[in-house]
Amino acid sequence: MTSEGNETRNPAEGGPPKLQFVPFSSALDAGFWHELTQKKLNEYKLDETPKAIRGYYYNGDPAGMPARLTLEFSAFDMNAPTPAHCCPAIGTLYNTNTLEAFKSCDKKLLLEQAANKIWDAITSGTAVENPVLLNRFILLTFADLKRYRFYYWFCYPALCLPEGIPLIQQPVCLGAKFSATQIEALQNAYDELCQKEGLTALPFFLIKYHDDSVLVSLLRNWDDFFSDPKEKVTIGVYDPCNFAQYPGWPLRNILVLAAHRWGSHLPSVQVLCFRDRTMQGARDISHSTLFEIKLPQVTQNSGCPKAVGWEKNQKGGMGPRMVNLSECMDPKRLAESSVDLNLKLMCWRLVPTLDLEKVVSVKCLLLGAGTLGCSVARTLMGWGVRKITFVDNAKISYSNPVRQPLYEFEDCLGGGKSKALAAADRLQKIFPGVNAEGFNMSIPMPGHPVNFSDVTLEQARKDVTQLEELIDAHDVIFLLMDTRESRWLPAVIAASKRKLVINAALGFDTFVVMRHGLKKPKHQEVGDSPCNNPSASADLLGSSLFSNIPGYKLGCYFCNDVVAPGDSTRDRTLDQQCTVSRPGLAMIAGALAVELMVSILQHPEGGYAIASSSDDRMNEPPTSLGLVPHQIRGFLSRFDNVLPVSLAFDKCTACSPRVLEQYEREGFNFLAKVFNSSHSFLEDLTGLTLLHQETQAAEIWDMSDDETL
Amino acid sequence: MTSEGNETRNPAEGGPPKLQFVPFSSALDAGFWHELTQKKLNEYKLDETPKAIRGYYYNGDPAGMPARLTLEFSAFDMNAPTPAHCCPAIGTLYNTNTLEAFKSCDKKLLLEQAANKIWDAITSGTAVENPVLLNRFILLTFADLKRYRFYYWFCYPALCLPEGIPLIQQPVCLGAKFSATQIEALQNAYDELCQKEGLTALPFFLIKYHDDSVLVSLLRNWDDFFSDPKEKVTIGVYDPCNFAQYPGWPLRNILVLAAHRWGSHLPSVQVLCFRDRTMQGARDISHSTLFEIKLPQVTQNSGCPKAVGWEKNQKGGMGPRMVNLSECMDPKRLAESSVDLNLKLMCWRLVPTLDLEKVVSVKCLLLGAGTLGCSVARTLMGWGVRKITFVDNAKISYSNPVRQPLYEFEDCLGGGKSKALAAADRLQKIFPGVNAEGFNMSIPMPGHPVNFSDVTLEQARKDVTQLEELIDAHDVIFLLMDTRESRWLPAVIAASKRKLVINAALGFDTFVVMRHGLKKPKHQEVGDSPCNNPSASADLLGSSLFSNIPGYKLGCYFCNDVVAPGDSTRDRTLDQQCTVSRPGLAMIAGALAVELMVSILQHPEGGYAIASSSDDRMNEPPTSLGLVPHQIRGFLSRFDNVLPVSLAFDKCTACSPRVLEQYEREGFNFLAKVFNSSHSFLEDLTGLTLLHQETQAAEIWDMSDDETL
Repeated sequence: MTSEGNETRNPAEGGPPKLQFVPFSSALDAGFWHELTQKKLNEYKLDETPKAIRGYYYNGDPAGMPARLTLEFSAFDMNAPTPAHCCPAIGTLYNTNTLEAFKSCDKKLLLEQAANKIWDAITSGTAVENPVLLNRFILLTFADLKRYRFYYWFCYPALCLPEGIPLIQQPVCLGAKFSATQIEALQNAYDELCQKEGLTALPFFLIKYHDDSVLVSLLRNWDDFFSDPKEKVTIGVYDPCNFAQYPGWPLRNILVLAAHRWGSHLPSVQVLCFRDRTMQGARDISHSTLFEIKLPQVTQNSGCPKAVGWEKNQKGGMGPRMVNLSECMDPKRLAESSVDLNLKLMCWRLVPTLDLEKVVSVKCLLLGAGTLGCSVARTLMGWGVRKITFVDNAKISYSNPVRQPLYEFEDCLGGGKSKALAAADRLQKIFPGVNAEGFNMSIPMPGHPVNFSDVTLEQARKDVTQLEELIDAHDVIFLLMDTRESRWLPAVIAASKRKLVINAALGFDTFVVMRHGLKKPKHQEVGDSPCNNPSASADLLGSSLFSNIPGYKLGCYFCNDVVAPGDSTRDRTLDQQCTVSRPGLAMIAGALAVELMVSILQHPEGGYAIASSSDDRMNEPPTSLGLVPHQIRGFLSRFDNVLPVSLAFDKCTACSPRVLEQYEREGFNFLAKVFNSSHSFLEDLTGLTLLHQETQAAEIWDMSDDETL
Repeated sequence: MTSEGNETRNPAEGGPPKLQFVPFSSALDAGFWHELTQKKLNEYKLDETPKAIRGYYYNGDPAGMPARLTLEFSAFDMNAPTPAHCCPAIGTLYNTNTLEAFKSCDKKLLLEQAANKIWDAITSGTAVENPVLLNRFILLTFADLKRYRFYYWFCYPALCLPEGIPLIQQPVCLGAKFSATQIEALQNAYDELCQKEGLTALPFFLIKYHDDSVLVSLLRNWDDFFSDPKEKVTIGVYDPCNFAQYPGWPLRNILVLAAHRWGSHLPSVQVLCFRDRTMQGARDISHSTLFEIKLPQVTQNSGCPKAVGWEKNQKGGMGPRMVNLSECMDPKRLAESSVDLNLKLMCWRLVPTLDLEKVVSVKCLLLGAGTLGCSVARTLMGWGVRKITFVDNAKISYSNPVRQPLYEFEDCLGGGKSKALAAADRLQKIFPGVNAEGFNMSIPMPGHPVNFSDVTLEQARKDVTQLEELIDAHDVIFLLMDTRESRWLPAVIAASKRKLVINAALGFDTFVVMRHGLKKPKHQEVGDSPCNNPSASADLLGSSLFSNIPGYKLGCYFCNDVVAPGDSTRDRTLDQQCTVSRPGLAMIAGALAVELMVSILQHPEGGYAIASSSDDRMNEPPTSLGLVPHQIRGFLSRFDNVLPVSLAFDKCTACSPRVLEQYEREGFNFLAKVFNSSHSFLEDLTGLTLLHQETQAAEIWDMSDDETL
């Protein structure tokens, strides 16, 4: 990107240097061309008359970005809102029917016509009332819709002052000239004026400042605002340029206006190139630049000055550009780029340190495709996650679609589709770019015997193998079932494979969303987990019981239990069978489960991150997205969430070393024993039985309500 | 259909043959199951105690039909009339909550209990007075209402005479024994007695006949009727059976009664199985059968005999039957009743005081069909709300479906469908029972002039009228737009019309969900709102600033502002609200908006309910669902919600008396001024301008973060 100023070359021979400007780079996105295609096809057809369009520019891009004038799909809607913090520009589209007409178009004439409009706005005063009239552009296009090739030439007319603009004082950054107080005052004054005017940005404005105050006003208030002849006149321009030494293109026409209206009695004027970025969450305008120029005289009746502004092409010459969208005009590709764009907006403006790639590339296994599974999948899609796999063995019933947002009435007909398969299909319908799969399978459960016959035993073995393979092939395992015991097997497998587990469970108006403790990698395991190092655990019990607990010491869903999971569905009445909960609950818990995962992924230590508790809400958050709690327990009746933290339990029926060792040594044979036995098998194995005996006379805190919420 | 008589097998070895009986076939029609479903949902809930029901049988079926005991929808109404020419039977329904309970039910015990009742009626004589007491049946059911499968086992208890009943004379048809005159006389006598007794049918009756006459009488008249010891005793039974050789089941208990009461002095008795059909328009009873039996002796103090009567299943074994009505029900009806079931389940065990009707019948207007609108609609569907109307003027773009859970990729093609219309269509696809509508229209906004031309002005007038009509026609107005200023007009109209307003707005990782203060009904307004009664307001400032504030004193979305709407970009967290927010946020806020509405509806004072604050979390909640806050402000980075409460502001640009008065007096003319003017118009009107001047030097508490989140 080179700075330039077509008519104001810096003369080698003496005198003050002349001001130079950085021109706009046109940024016409795929959505713009797509919309042009639609307009051409459905509306313009053979009509070649000029069309009003609109673009916008932004003053907060990171250094190194070109000063862009952006046109997107909304460019054709003159009532479309300008994006926040952006400044609108009004354009004229000349879309020709043929490449010949495009080439032979009289570009000099188009430029003159546009320049005349700007000049009229300056001389009539309408530009003072509505400065956007100075932000005018031309777009000449030919759309080859058969081949999806778009030829275009962009022009942002700038009126020229024949002698150039002498630079009296070189640009310095605002931070070097203004105190912190002044900077803040400027920022506030600018914001207030925007808000008062109902504008997303002020393209041009007036400034006067003193040591302790900064005032800004609109162009039309010039006379009142600068009524004191001793007051220094500063013109603010919303500046899309990033160069420290040069202003962007929009400054040109406002300086012509200033020279025309006020140049005669204003020998010099200061210019603030207002630049406004957010870095690491903090707003910053101190890189704005300030400099002083001499305003040339413009004869009142001189007629419209000469203008420049046709954009150079990629090769640096004066000529049109061409984009070939034949590939990305595929609507599916278009959908993908739109979804990407939306996500990137988060980074660009709000959370620059967000590592989107970590989120988008994560492979998620959703065990359960009911109310929770559907909400989790939807939120994952919103985050751009591309690999989503469902496991469920249920069919869609008539009561599901109103609470399970991936299903419709039609899915219930004829006995109901498989939830897992239908959910995957639906994701593809929502966003063809997703890679979704469904597995219609059962998850074997403790206390649900599989030894009725060779057939049932073999089926269970297959299901276990399938589940192991699925857990292997994914990064994050979501436990979203509606029974406790169905969570046991995946909890064991995922713990053994060191996969991040996100667990969500609903009560009637309460929920728990938690990450399971993530065991240390096997080679690091030697004796320092709280499970087999009682003294470390005892230390923790000392001063700060539940603070600074790293991920590998955290409990799993079963760690709070003192009974092994068993068959909880047998003999339950209807209201117990279907998890009766307030309808909003699953959406809230599902959304939180994904947001928790995303926050964990943003932490440099991922699942090993120290757990945040409710007390940490006042502290500096550990990630750009905030806290990484162990558990979120929600109480809808109080609209309240708490963030408990709990340690892994060395007698846990799912994640304790004895269970994991047995599983890793004996595999399915061990699991089959668990499926076929009453809960006492696991209780004996883990030592829970002993614990029960020891505490038989004592009062045990009944956590059954907690377990099931 | 085979005849049988469990205990009275025909012995091959000598002696007279024993009488055999044809059992009832239970005939439970769809109406019965439908009614059972309703009873279970609305009345029985988890109550498993026995219920009285009734059935009936008919003695006029064509040959070949089984002897049916029919239960239809009227079975639950003990006062329902018995169908003409039918005989009632009284039953006991045992409806279990689980399939387990159904299976494990002690059927032997149930049968014994029923047999004992019959025996008591026999021995006490009540059955002589009211012979229907002998027609007793048991129905054991389990209704799987999620899958529309009904498990049942029917029993018609018959007391057994241990030795069986010797058949002295084989059955012959009445036509072979009676003359035409006798047949006609029997028919007339039977009809007259029915009429005299006001009965549709006589289950059992006494007959004596001679060559030229036939007399019938009631059981209770036995002694008088058969006072002549030489008179042949004939017992008539209304017989549902068609077999020429066998009587139906009802004969069994009456014979036990006869044996018990009169067996000792009646060695033999004649039986008339009264069958009464209409063939080709002519009534015919000549196929009734007559036969003679020996009445066994029954010891007076022998205790209740053994009983039989459980029905065999379709396979001929002793086991329950199952009907699957999911296929034969209209799937749309099925969906509706399934959705109802899910909701009613909440009431049964969890929140018995929940007034579902208040929720289900509420009419909701959703202004905005984007991320928030879609989530709100989904949650409303979950709550069973049937009337949902969308207003939006946007089209579905490619980036929408992954975040707006009512749209799919296909909706984006060809420029995109209208959101409002597509959202309504989707709701119908999810649940055909919903009444959803979409209005593709713009909402005029302050600072967005409408006076460009007559056309634009007329359009704005139409839009306002349309919006007013829509707000009139709904109960709750959801403000779910993505700009501040578009909320102004509906906020004003809804405040004027005293409609409950639920407002939701998103930042990047923060949200506000609130109810607007609900003004008192107009006739109660005289001078006691905080707006026009500064002293009341001052009182509040005294001790308990934000506690016990009733709904009518609460602020609206604009009450915290000290500038009129017209801009929504001051703070970075509020720009591009719906596009650049954490994807889970809209689901959470949308769900909470609906849950807040539901909680408010459950409060006896509705929108006038005192606002709960964060401090109330420890107190007894005001509704069965918990708190009814004014605002829920959520902070996703901390997984935290707070519940602020704020008062209505007497200079509010939306809900203050001056604005409402002007709107109510001038209507569109006032609104047009607001649309066309800069914000100062509203500020001047409400006195905000004055406030600004008064406080110009003072520090104003900057509530911008609050206002916009």
